Amino acid sequence: MPSTPAGNHSSNAKKVVANGKFPSHPEGPLRNPAINGLKDKRFDTFKTWSGKLERQISNLRGKNREDTHDSNPQENIEVETLPVDRYFDALQGPELDTLRPSEEIILPEDKQWPFLLRYPISSFGICLGVSSQAIMWKALATSTSTKFLHISPDVNLALWCISVALVVIVSSIYFLKVIFYFEAVRREYYHPIRINFFFAPWIALLFLALGVPPSISEKLHAALWYILMFPIFCLELKIYGQWMSGGKRRLSKVANPSNHLSVVGNFVGALLGASMGLKEGPIFFFAIGLAHYMVLFVTLYQRLPTNETLPKELHPVFFLFVAAPSVASMAWANIQGSFDYGSRIAYFIAMFLYFSLAVRINFFRGFRFSLAWWAYTFPMTGAAIATIRYSNVVTNVVTKCLTVILCVTATLTVTALLVTTIIHAFVLRNLFPNDIAIAISQGKPKTTRRWFHRRSGSSDTTIKHIEHYLKFADSEEKDIEASNESAGKV
Amino acid sequence: MPSTPAGNHSSNAKKVVANGKFPSHPEGPLRNPAINGLKDKRFDTFKTWSGKLERQISNLRGKNREDTHDSNPQENIEVETLPVDRYFDALQGPELDTLRPSEEIILPEDKQWPFLLRYPISSFGICLGVSSQAIMWKALATSTSTKFLHISPDVNLALWCISVALVVIVSSIYFLKVIFYFEAVRREYYHPIRINFFFAPWIALLFLALGVPPSISEKLHAALWYILMFPIFCLELKIYGQWMSGGKRRLSKVANPSNHLSVVGNFVGALLGASMGLKEGPIFFFAIGLAHYMVLFVTLYQRLPTNETLPKELHPVFFLFVAAPSVASMAWANIQGSFDYGSRIAYFIAMFLYFSLAVRINFFRGFRFSLAWWAYTFPMTGAAIATIRYSNVVTNVVTKCLTVILCVTATLTVTALLVTTIIHAFVLRNLFPNDIAIAISQGKPKTTRRWFHRRSGSSDTTIKHIEHYLKFADSEEKDIEASNESAGKV
Amino acid sequence: MPSTPAGNHSSNAKKVVANGKFPSHPEGPLRNPAINGLKDKRFDTFKTWSGKLERQISNLRGKNREDTHDSNPQENIEVETLPVDRYFDALQGPELDTLRPSEEIILPEDKQWPFLLRYPISSFGICLGVSSQAIMWKALATSTSTKFLHISPDVNLALWCISVALVVIVSSIYFLKVIFYFEAVRREYYHPIRINFFFAPWIALLFLALGVPPSISEKLHAALWYILMFPIFCLELKIYGQWMSGGKRRLSKVANPSNHLSVVGNFVGALLGASMGLKEGPIFFFAIGLAHYMVLFVTLYQRLPTNETLPKELHPVFFLFVAAPSVASMAWANIQGSFDYGSRIAYFIAMFLYFSLAVRINFFRGFRFSLAWWAYTFPMTGAAIATIRYSNVVTNVVTKCLTVILCVTATLTVTALLVTTIIHAFVLRNLFPNDIAIAISQGKPKTTRRWFHRRSGSSDTTIKHIEHYLKFADSEEKDIEASNESAGKV
Repeated sequence: MPSTPAGNHSSNAKKVVANGKFPSHPEGPLRNPAINGLKDKRFDTFKTWSGKLERQISNLRGKNREDTHDSNPQENIEVETLPVDRYFDALQGPELDTLRPSEEIILPEDKQWPFLLRYPISSFGICLGVSSQAIMWKALATSTSTKFLHISPDVNLALWCISVALVVIVSSIYFLKVIFYFEAVRREYYHPIRINFFFAPWIALLFLALGVPPSISEKLHAALWYILMFPIFCLELKIYGQWMSGGKRRLSKVANPSNHLSVVGNFVGALLGASMGLKEGPIFFFAIGLAHYMVLFVTLYQRLPTNETLPKELHPVFFLFVAAPSVASMAWANIQGSFDYGSRIAYFIAMFLYFSLAVRINFFRGFRFSLAWWAYTFPMTGAAIATIRYSNVVTNVVTKCLTVILCVTATLTVTALLVTTIIHAFVLRNLFPNDIAIAISQGKPKTTRRWFHRRSGSSDTTIKHIEHYLKFADSEEKDIEASNESAGKV
Repeated sequence: MPSTPAGNHSSNAKKVVANGKFPSHPEGPLRNPAINGLKDKRFDTFKTWSGKLERQISNLRGKNREDTHDSNPQENIEVETLPVDRYFDALQGPELDTLRPSEEIILPEDKQWPFLLRYPISSFGICLGVSSQAIMWKALATSTSTKFLHISPDVNLALWCISVALVVIVSSIYFLKVIFYFEAVRREYYHPIRINFFFAPWIALLFLALGVPPSISEKLHAALWYILMFPIFCLELKIYGQWMSGGKRRLSKVANPSNHLSVVGNFVGALLGASMGLKEGPIFFFAIGLAHYMVLFVTLYQRLPTNETLPKELHPVFFLFVAAPSVASMAWANIQGSFDYGSRIAYFIAMFLYFSLAVRINFFRGFRFSLAWWAYTFPMTGAAIATIRYSNVVTNVVTKCLTVILCVTATLTVTALLVTTIIHAFVLRNLFPNDIAIAISQGKPKTTRRWFHRRSGSSDTTIKHIEHYLKFADSEEKDIEASNESAGKV
Repeated sequence: MPSTPAGNHSSNAKKVVANGKFPSHPEGPLRNPAINGLKDKRFDTFKTWSGKLERQISNLRGKNREDTHDSNPQENIEVETLPVDRYFDALQGPELDTLRPSEEIILPEDKQWPFLLRYPISSFGICLGVSSQAIMWKALATSTSTKFLHISPDVNLALWCISVALVVIVSSIYFLKVIFYFEAVRREYYHPIRINFFFAPWIALLFLALGVPPSISEKLHAALWYILMFPIFCLELKIYGQWMSGGKRRLSKVANPSNHLSVVGNFVGALLGASMGLKEGPIFFFAIGLAHYMVLFVTLYQRLPTNETLPKELHPVFFLFVAAPSVASMAWANIQGSFDYGSRIAYFIAMFLYFSLAVRINFFRGFRFSLAWWAYTFPMTGAAIATIRYSNVVTNVVTKCLTVILCVTATLTVTALLVTTIIHAFVLRNLFPNDIAIAISQGKPKTTRRWFHRRSGSSDTTIKHIEHYLKFADSEEKDIEASNESAGKV
């Protein structure tokens, strides 16, 4: 640790100022305008056929890679698994999809990327939203307590066909992404929030099986259940194992309401299995779901300060809180054979959480729309379906009103979201913005995360040391940012 | 951040020394003796009729406000909602009712305030303590397993009448406080510990309904239950929502055994509802109670270091741990129709917690008496009542002995507390000391929370910076105070 | 805080460098080679008969203590209860049994200690492993679903006799340790991980009672259950109370999978009691177990960063996760009278956890063998026994296969561990290495835990201050160590 001359340091300090997160440079790091000149080549690192093979193929496809020898270092980075820390460091926001000002991305920011690169796994949320509606309308048409509404089973049929079409389309496109941009899929898989959406395709398929119109099939084959539950089981082994086995993906760090997606699959599976007449399998998944839901519920309610991805305020994602107990109540009713006290306890917990969020509806404004919102609608539909089930057992004017209100709310929400999605897709044409979350750089930009600087003075070395020793404060970043602001004013 | 001359700083430093928390100044910040000259005007900010209207009215009431133009800034502060941080910053102690040495209060410390300002919401604890005794003596008089004690139902009648009188008196006085010192009530409502006591009036009413002597009423009207549960439901929406929706009142920050008061109401309501013959309503509250009790139980047991209000050591407030499972066991027994395994599990958990605290009785000494202690007696009575219920199902010599022991303990505790209260009220005349908790100042005193100082030296600027950047250490204040002490010795 | 001359400080700084944890001194603190000259006297502090009595006795025993007047200060330290912080500060590793490089121990490191001092409480793990095998073979021999295996009850008889012998031997030796080296036992008792192993002797006795061969006794006397449960109950009052009542042993600090040992006793007791025909007692322990298992399960799954003793990665100790739900499922089945949904939920949770660990088997390599590993085998056996119970209810080819696989796995694991133990005992002769965990020094070594130093400069005083104020960073030691390393490179 030699004592370096002060002049050296002050130049360092200037660099910090130039690239840091200081209020005087709110526009983030300086970007080289020359980057704009590079065309599509930057996307190559995300392509499945990269490296030698990729070059040959891209040559075949007519792309002329005349300047592979240029000095842009990022292009030559060997793409390895990103450590989860990088996601936390480089991204912010409740869905962890906004770049921090100090970070750079490795894809061009100023132009639209290829469609497949902009197509996130959360698109499966649409399937969840619509197929759960299909189930709801099936329940409305077939339940005794909602006979008075005279709902035609055709609504269910129509919605189910749309759902099937949607699942096919969304899956096909994502499958293309898997084929052509495997690196992008891999980065979504390692993204601490996005990983939960990898449950969505399988849950959507379970929903399709649950909502199958009676006119199409009366009884599904049990093998279907085993086939659908297998990928969910594997994903759970992976994710719950990560929670428990520590490291950077431990639960006290990644807990976020979107984790409910990884728990609710158990209950949906238990519900489907029990309604198919299976016995042990549904209880197995119900048990796993119960244990992990309990852990997740407590963790999310506690709002540990170490939960880096938990939105500071309310956010539509919180509606996922309602999903698990709603579905659990129905699953338990199917396993047990009646909507007993256990089912009611789960159902009432769901209702309380729903109501607790509903009275805070004012807090749910001003968020940027994203496709992930679709995933947050199925809990509402789930609560409506559970209410139909409940009103079958406790039939009176209150439960009937509640059923109607919740069904209308769920349908209106889905409709509103549909309209919004169409507007974004065809009017604003920004339904699929550049997916920043998958384009973060491998390493930290050299000069970021210095959160204070000095002009001059005799204690430069001291400052350097302090910088080093204060680094453990990383986890308290919020406070530090506040300090930065006050430091800026001194 | 210009480098200011050192002389300037050293004067700053002196101010820090003069007002800081250093051992050499244990008496806290210097107070202007002129303040003593101001009479009652300082209480005006807490009066409901403050501002223009207030001045007119106070003029009518004969108060001459000749010096509203004086330079005392605190008087002119517009009273806004105090952020919860201020409570954590300014107060300490297990009930968060002691001023930190570095803080100032906005009411005169050296004289007794008006009675209503000193009258805390925790006074309702007396109602809880006595009305739960009424229930216990009712159970003793009517249970088959305690027939051998030959308890007269008149004890229940007498205690119930006293309870009614107490509830009327305590409520009336607090109602006067609401009318005349609404600001003080508001500050209690925003106090992170006190807020839980806002459940006490409604729980006391539920206790009255539960303990109503058979001679007065055999059957209560169901409407009563809905009326009593409505405010509890609203308060829960508010408080549980705060836990979940984050911010400064999130559970990992405010968790404290007094939160049990906000959970136990659910079980008391479920017990009353089920004993009235209702079905769905009681299960609804039982479910809410169960979910949130689980969260609270785990959180309190974990003793997260972020729980700022959790007493470091044992404290009478820990007896609230026993309340929820005791009442829950009875509530479930009433819902289910028999004291089944579920009830027994809850009951045995309560017993273990009771016993676990009882063997640590030595740790419960040396605390300053406060009215809040009354609230900590009803769990004992609740455990005794649950034991009477249990002994009805499992009747043998052990359960009978346990019943007698717990009933005697509960009665003795209440009696001892009654005597202590009378002594404090009429002999020591300090039952209602100045309620510091509601009088904390709006902002931090300018010179507090500087936790180190320097005499001289060339690195003043450095120190300033360090002060800034170390501020994130707030949450580790204990350690810092320790450091301060060692710093003082250097 | 007078400003001392810089020269004084720089000499201080040098001392820090010389003794600190810097990479240039990886061999830890310098040790006085003269220490090696002192013979057995150093063990005297751990002997029960220390002090005056001890000297007389040791004189009688022929030891000549001619140099009690020597200047070795450690020998004269009055042995008091070690604060738990010392264990966290001085030790590391998942079993908290490795000395940190900066620490010194008070027993000679370079020679083998007396056998009793090296004999840890975790030796009872062997009893757990073997006696649980006895239960498994009893279940295999007597269950209807495993009739097809034609297991002879003699296997159970043989294993049970071996278990009894083991329990007698292990207990006798540990009893000798209690008599002759009570201080060492006390230090194990205060060790935050080891304390959990104090449950092992009683659980082993419960296992013996559960596995008693039908040929020896058909029915045990109920009094036996009360006698065996009493010490478990007392230990629980102690340990759960420490979790709740705060201080340095609060759960958010000491949580470690070995805590499962302190919870599983409840379920084993409930299982034994219920199989003896008792009713209330088993439910009592089941309730305690359930409440605390829930807390522990959530806490361990969350992996709070404050859990100082939780292994960063997977470790054999994680298999203890499987124990509690396995035994709980059987206990509940015995209490309830049938393997109902409650039992199945517990059983399936155990299965999922087992499977979740089994697929991560690759992570369980490279750990240093220790006797504690034996304790980690009984959960496997427990899962196998629970599977036998389950296959009695759900008899099909899958459950039969599962039974065989789990039984074979458990037996193989125990056999492998037996072979390893024999190799370590008789070939490598290091089955009982020096038990560093009990020999940590009373206070911190003077010069450790200074984690930065300076050469020279005008801001020495500043540095001193910073050192003081940064001390709260203790809990973030890992980060600091990382900083140290980078500091070393500057």
